[in-house]
Amino acid sequence: MALIIQKYGGTSVGNIEKIKSVAERVIESCERGNRLLVVLSAMAGQTDNLIRLSKEITETPDPRELDVLMATGEQISVSLFAMTVKSMGYDCRSILGFQAAIHTDQIYGKARIRKIDADRLLKELDERRVVAVAGFQGIDENRNITTLGRGGSDTTAVALAAALKADLCEIFTDVGGVFSADPNICTHARKLERISYEEMLELASLGAKVLDIRSVEFAKKFNVSIHVRSSFTKNEGTMVVAENKEMEKVLVSGVVFDKNQARITMIKVPDRPGIAFKIFDPVSKARIVVDMIIQNTSAEGLTDLTFTVSKTDFQENIKLVRRIAKEIGAEKVLGDQDIAKVSIVGLGMRNHAGVATKMFEALSKENINICMISTSEIKISCIIEEKYTELAVRAIHEAFGLGNEKEKD
Amino acid sequence: MALIIQKYGGTSVGNIEKIKSVAERVIESCERGNRLLVVLSAMAGQTDNLIRLSKEITETPDPRELDVLMATGEQISVSLFAMTVKSMGYDCRSILGFQAAIHTDQIYGKARIRKIDADRLLKELDERRVVAVAGFQGIDENRNITTLGRGGSDTTAVALAAALKADLCEIFTDVGGVFSADPNICTHARKLERISYEEMLELASLGAKVLDIRSVEFAKKFNVSIHVRSSFTKNEGTMVVAENKEMEKVLVSGVVFDKNQARITMIKVPDRPGIAFKIFDPVSKARIVVDMIIQNTSAEGLTDLTFTVSKTDFQENIKLVRRIAKEIGAEKVLGDQDIAKVSIVGLGMRNHAGVATKMFEALSKENINICMISTSEIKISCIIEEKYTELAVRAIHEAFGLGNEKEKD
Repeated sequence: MALIIQKYGGTSVGNIEKIKSVAERVIESCERGNRLLVVLSAMAGQTDNLIRLSKEITETPDPRELDVLMATGEQISVSLFAMTVKSMGYDCRSILGFQAAIHTDQIYGKARIRKIDADRLLKELDERRVVAVAGFQGIDENRNITTLGRGGSDTTAVALAAALKADLCEIFTDVGGVFSADPNICTHARKLERISYEEMLELASLGAKVLDIRSVEFAKKFNVSIHVRSSFTKNEGTMVVAENKEMEKVLVSGVVFDKNQARITMIKVPDRPGIAFKIFDPVSKARIVVDMIIQNTSAEGLTDLTFTVSKTDFQENIKLVRRIAKEIGAEKVLGDQDIAKVSIVGLGMRNHAGVATKMFEALSKENINICMISTSEIKISCIIEEKYTELAVRAIHEAFGLGNEKEKD
Repeated sequence: MALIIQKYGGTSVGNIEKIKSVAERVIESCERGNRLLVVLSAMAGQTDNLIRLSKEITETPDPRELDVLMATGEQISVSLFAMTVKSMGYDCRSILGFQAAIHTDQIYGKARIRKIDADRLLKELDERRVVAVAGFQGIDENRNITTLGRGGSDTTAVALAAALKADLCEIFTDVGGVFSADPNICTHARKLERISYEEMLELASLGAKVLDIRSVEFAKKFNVSIHVRSSFTKNEGTMVVAENKEMEKVLVSGVVFDKNQARITMIKVPDRPGIAFKIFDPVSKARIVVDMIIQNTSAEGLTDLTFTVSKTDFQENIKLVRRIAKEIGAEKVLGDQDIAKVSIVGLGMRNHAGVATKMFEALSKENINICMISTSEIKISCIIEEKYTELAVRAIHEAFGLGNEKEKD
C-alpha cells in the first residue's frame, strides 16, 4: 500500500465546493489502495484578510502574534476538509502543526523545519484514516506557533514526505506542471515530463512560481520525488527528481522571467579597499536582498557600481544608498525600475559551449539591449528593459526549440 | 502586586476599535501595579460565521473537526489583542489552549476542564508581560483540540483564577452586573452589590444569561470571587462570592424568566410501575433535557403526565412522545409552546415562610394563571402563559420591593 502525500494550494480549497472536489479526489486515491496524507494551504483570500486585519492595528505587527493569527487560515481549511471527507463516509482527521510536532527554529514568519516527530501521523495513518495536515505552520521549542512564510505549505508537504518516507509527494497547483516557459506568454510552451532538483531550484529562484524554493531544497536533500500536477484535471504533470544522465542531453529546460527587478547605479565611487563592504553592509542590515552586482573597471581611482534589488525594496533602498553615496563621496545615484530579468536554465549547459551566445543572438535579433549579465553553472540571466520581457522570452524559447510540435509548424 | 484575571466577551472585542479600548483598560490596570491575565472570546459574529461555513458541508459536522474550526475564533482575537498591546508599548503574549495546557475531557463541543498546568502562564506573568489566553478552548489527553461550549470563556477565566490563585476574577459584560430583574423589563431593576454562588447558579439555570453556569460551579468549588462588571463603563458591578450571614437577610435577590419553554401533556396514561421510565428513558437517550415533571393523582388506573422541555427541542420531542404514547396505550398527547417560566431566587427563603404565597398573590392580582409550580430550597418557579411574562416579572419584582428607590416613588 503506497503512502502518498498530496498538497493542495489556496485556490484548490478556495470555497466549500472546491474543498468537496479535493475530498473526492483524495477518496478516489484511497479507493485505489493508497494511504493518503493531505497538506492544505489556507483558503484563497483568507491570509490576505488576516493581514489586512492586523494592519488596522499597526503597520508593523508583532511577528510572533502575526504567526498565531496566520496559522488560523490553515486550521480552518483542514478542519473543513476533514468534515467534508467524514461527511462522505471516510475517516479523516485534521492535524495542526503542534499536533504533528513539526518543530521549527524561532524565526517567526519564515521559520525553517528542523525535525518532525512522525509517530502521531503514522499512528493516524495506520488506523486507516485520511490525515489532513495544516501546511505552513510549526512550533518552536517553547511551543510557540511559527509559520514558514509564503509557499510554506509546499515545504510542509515535502518535509512530511521525507519524514514519513512516503512513496510520492504530489503538489497540486492551478498550472499543472513545470513548463518550458510561462504558457500565458508562449502559447506553445511545453510541459516538462521531468526536471532535476538543481534546475528547479534555479527556475524557482529566477521567478518561476510553481514551487517554493525551500521545498525543492528539502526534496533534494532527502531525495523526495515531487509530482507537480493540476488540481483541476487528471493529466500527468512534471516530476521533479534527482539528476540523471538522460537529463544532461537537454541543453536548456526552460526560460523564465522576473519583472520584480529594479536597478541602482552609483556613479564615480572612489575605488578603495573596503568600499563594497561600506555600501552593502547597511543594505543587508536593512534586510534588503541584493541580486546581481557589477563593478566596472576603475578609471582614475573612480568606478561605477550597479546592482539589482526587487522592485518592492526599491524605494527604501535608494534612499539608503543615496545616504551612503554622500558618506563615501560618490558622485550620484541613479535608479531604474523599468527592468526585468530573463533567464535560461539547463543541466546541459555544463558540457556545451555556445549556449550564452545563442541567447544573446536571439535577443540581438529582436534589437533588445542587454544591460547586465550573470551566469552560473546551469543558468544565464540577462537584465533587459521591462517592456521587452514577453518578446525576449518568446525569442529565446524559439531559438532553443523548446516548444512543442505545434510551435514548429 | 495583585494578580487579576479579566475576561472580555465577544461584543467587547467585536472590532479593532473595541480591541484597542480593551487594551487601554488592561494597560491602565497594569499601571496601577497589577499583574494581568486576560481571557478573550471570539470576536462577535466570528463563531456564527464559522458554524455557517461548516453547515455548507453538512448539517451534522464532525464534532472533533467542529472544535478545531471553532477554536480559530479565539486564536484570532488573542493574537490581534496581543499585537495591539505590544503596539502600545507594553509586553504581551497570546497563549492558546494547548500552550496553557488547559486539559479537558474528550467531550467535543462541551468539554470540561480537568487540570491546568499553571507553570507556563506563571512564567509569562513573572516576566512582566500581559498574558492573553484564548477562552473556550482546551486539549484532551491526546492533544486533540476541545471546546467548552457557548459561554466557555467564563469558565476558562474562573478556572485560571483558581489554578493561578488569582486575587480577583473580573468578567466584563455588556450588561454591567447582576440585576434584581432584566432592566429591559423592569426599568428600576437594581444592580446587586453581591450575590452568593448558590443564588447565581439558580439564576443562571433559570434564564439569566450574565454568567455561564459552569463558571459559577467552578467558582463555588474553588472559592473564586467573581466581579461581573461593564466593559463600557468604570462602574462597579456585582460580586459573586461565598454565602455569608448577611445575605440570608435578603428574602429574594432576583426575578428571572425563561421563554424558551414548552409543555407536553400525555393524557390518560395507564398508571403502572415503570411507566415513567418507559416514557423518559427514550427522551433522555435522545439527549432532550426535561425540566419540570408533574403527575396527577391517578383515577381509575389512569393518570395525566405533564412535563416541560425547551422550545428548541419541542418538535423533536413531541414526535417521540406521540410514538411512546401509542406503545404504552395513553389516550393522547397535547403540546403547548406558548408558555414561559418565571422564577424568584433568594437565600432568605430557607428561613422564611410565606414567600411562595406572596409570589402567587402577585400573579393572582394580575389575573395570571399558574400552570405548573416547582420549588427548591432557594427558588420558586411558575409556568405561565408566555404573553404575561413581562407583566408577571414586573408584578413580582414590585411585590418583593426589589427595585431601587425610584421605583418606590
